[in-house]
Amino acid sequence: MDLLIHREELVRALARAQGIAEKRSTSPVLSSVLLQASGETLRATATDKAITLIADYAATIKTPGEVAVDATNFFQAAKVLRGDIVTLRLLDNGRLEVRSGSAVYNLTTFPATEFPVTPALDQARTMTVDAGGLRRTIDRVHFSVAGDDNRYGLNGAHVEDTSTTDGAVVRFVGTDGNRLSWAQVPYRGELGIGRKMLLPRKGLGEVRKLLDGYEGEVGISFGERAALVQWPGVLVHVRLLEADFPDYRQVLPTSFKRRAIIEKDAFREALKSVSILATDASNSVKFQFSPEGLVLSARKLDAGDSRDEVAMEYSGEPIAMGFNARFVGEVLSVLDGTRVSVELGDALSPCILRDMDDDGALFVVMPVRLD
Amino acid sequence: MDLLIHREELVRALARAQGIAEKRSTSPVLSSVLLQASGETLRATATDKAITLIADYAATIKTPGEVAVDATNFFQAAKVLRGDIVTLRLLDNGRLEVRSGSAVYNLTTFPATEFPVTPALDQARTMTVDAGGLRRTIDRVHFSVAGDDNRYGLNGAHVEDTSTTDGAVVRFVGTDGNRLSWAQVPYRGELGIGRKMLLPRKGLGEVRKLLDGYEGEVGISFGERAALVQWPGVLVHVRLLEADFPDYRQVLPTSFKRRAIIEKDAFREALKSVSILATDASNSVKFQFSPEGLVLSARKLDAGDSRDEVAMEYSGEPIAMGFNARFVGEVLSVLDGTRVSVELGDALSPCILRDMDDDGALFVVMPVRLD
Repeated sequence: MDLLIHREELVRALARAQGIAEKRSTSPVLSSVLLQASGETLRATATDKAITLIADYAATIKTPGEVAVDATNFFQAAKVLRGDIVTLRLLDNGRLEVRSGSAVYNLTTFPATEFPVTPALDQARTMTVDAGGLRRTIDRVHFSVAGDDNRYGLNGAHVEDTSTTDGAVVRFVGTDGNRLSWAQVPYRGELGIGRKMLLPRKGLGEVRKLLDGYEGEVGISFGERAALVQWPGVLVHVRLLEADFPDYRQVLPTSFKRRAIIEKDAFREALKSVSILATDASNSVKFQFSPEGLVLSARKLDAGDSRDEVAMEYSGEPIAMGFNARFVGEVLSVLDGTRVSVELGDALSPCILRDMDDDGALFVVMPVRLD
Repeated sequence: MDLLIHREELVRALARAQGIAEKRSTSPVLSSVLLQASGETLRATATDKAITLIADYAATIKTPGEVAVDATNFFQAAKVLRGDIVTLRLLDNGRLEVRSGSAVYNLTTFPATEFPVTPALDQARTMTVDAGGLRRTIDRVHFSVAGDDNRYGLNGAHVEDTSTTDGAVVRFVGTDGNRLSWAQVPYRGELGIGRKMLLPRKGLGEVRKLLDGYEGEVGISFGERAALVQWPGVLVHVRLLEADFPDYRQVLPTSFKRRAIIEKDAFREALKSVSILATDASNSVKFQFSPEGLVLSARKLDAGDSRDEVAMEYSGEPIAMGFNARFVGEVLSVLDGTRVSVELGDALSPCILRDMDDDGALFVVMPVRLD
């Protein structure tokens, strides 16, 4: 293997790869990036077994070849190179020579054959969505997905077809049991329904990061055990969660007794200022809805209490409810519009938040009991 | 107590105070900031017992008074306030009401009398230095002071009078046993020599932070147990270390056999790129000096090796030496000039670095044994 590559392109390749590669595996080859040079492309593959990224980068290949190199070491070195062009050359002693300007690195390698093979996908059907729409969908669902719950089905975003006669639409749903969000995006082509379509939280987050800066179409295919997300030069293989997502529609209220319409920015700022004195663990803030406005207040033992208010349009009886300020704040931070609708039932019924100008997403937050 | 203060002024006061106040003390009042309102000034005092900061801020005092409030809680709240003006009012129930825009906080307080009293200084002599010169002096010495060494004398910067017939000069010296730096600055007035003038590392760092953005004169007085550093509106009381600083002149080489003159930026960049593959713990990089130039190289087990070179002017026999890359890099990062002079003895003799254009500071780095 002998090739030339622009430093920025190499740094981009390694930044992505070291984000995916396992950091402290008992099998060191899993911490490496597989480099494959052929044609006019350097292909870089990294995996943590659950997620595999295969991405192509422009390079001038003098001698094709392949080798695996520790992703973190290589990334650290590439970041401080000073020349515009970097030469990569596999030496006879098995080291990878990295040369740029006056700096030379000789990195230890693993044979390419030791790098784990990504299983092929048993699925030919692919749906296509716009990159911008997919980014927005992931942003509005990812934060609600459970982190590491022992109810395994909550640790991923559930994907389902919600097409109507108006058009083909795919919905992503995430919940951690205390809040839920769904967001949907139109698709073209075929949504290949696998047995379970539960995308793990980390995989969803990595796809979101990789989508940064890309405008164009994204193909998504679901197989029995994995999904493929791909666009020109990038292929992400994500192992699906083998668990059941709960029947989330059961918790979605079908009617409401009270409704508030609030300016989003004022709501966010007041919530932020009040939650400074919310108790750390529960993060509980009291919401008092009435025709006079929304009064937010919190109290922290040994520290004091806080209070702020926000104007709103309100219909229904006054009510006082408690919410985890972080859960409500995270919803407000992903809404694009200027006004948010808040639909309420009774003091312990789930609350629905949504963007007044966008019915492509919905957010549910469970209240907490006030002391 | 009842007063108005600009939000920016309050945030600045609390940012400083919470940096000094003890975070998790068994005595909660030590985590608080003492507020004293009188005349046209809000005085804020914070202490961790070793360092006390007393600083004055412009405010409109309606009713004078004093009270202590948890510094972290108050700072968090002040940061998210949205009004330009903040009202602080001590309520009858002992709470401090903080009000700005529509937000209100009622913070728990401690009586001002519970806040520890800062002992007065038994010293009337004061020297005066320029703020810019003091900042530069601290920057060049602070990083060499030991962090938490059981040789207590190394945990502070030693201050001594190095005046000559050319003028009054004060020198700060720091060492951790493996490297040493001194830097000096002219003074006016009287350098009040206490029994020991050993400023602890943290105190030195806090004074440096407080000096940010201030141009003018700084007064420094040394007493038997503490030093006072002050300028208009700010007074820092620093308890001195009760330990002996070593006789550092013994380790300063008085002659050299070899001398290199190197462009600082090229040296820094090459050192940074090579040290990526230095072994984590020792950070050891091999320096090969010869008339052909300086060759830097490093080797990390299981990762590979690195090499880079820098042009230099050199006089003396070729030599290979090992240095901790961080120690050399930290010296290069505080030099202002474009060229650095490196004076060498034998392979295990201390190395002296200095700015070619500035004899107001000197840096010594001990070599490490090469494998």
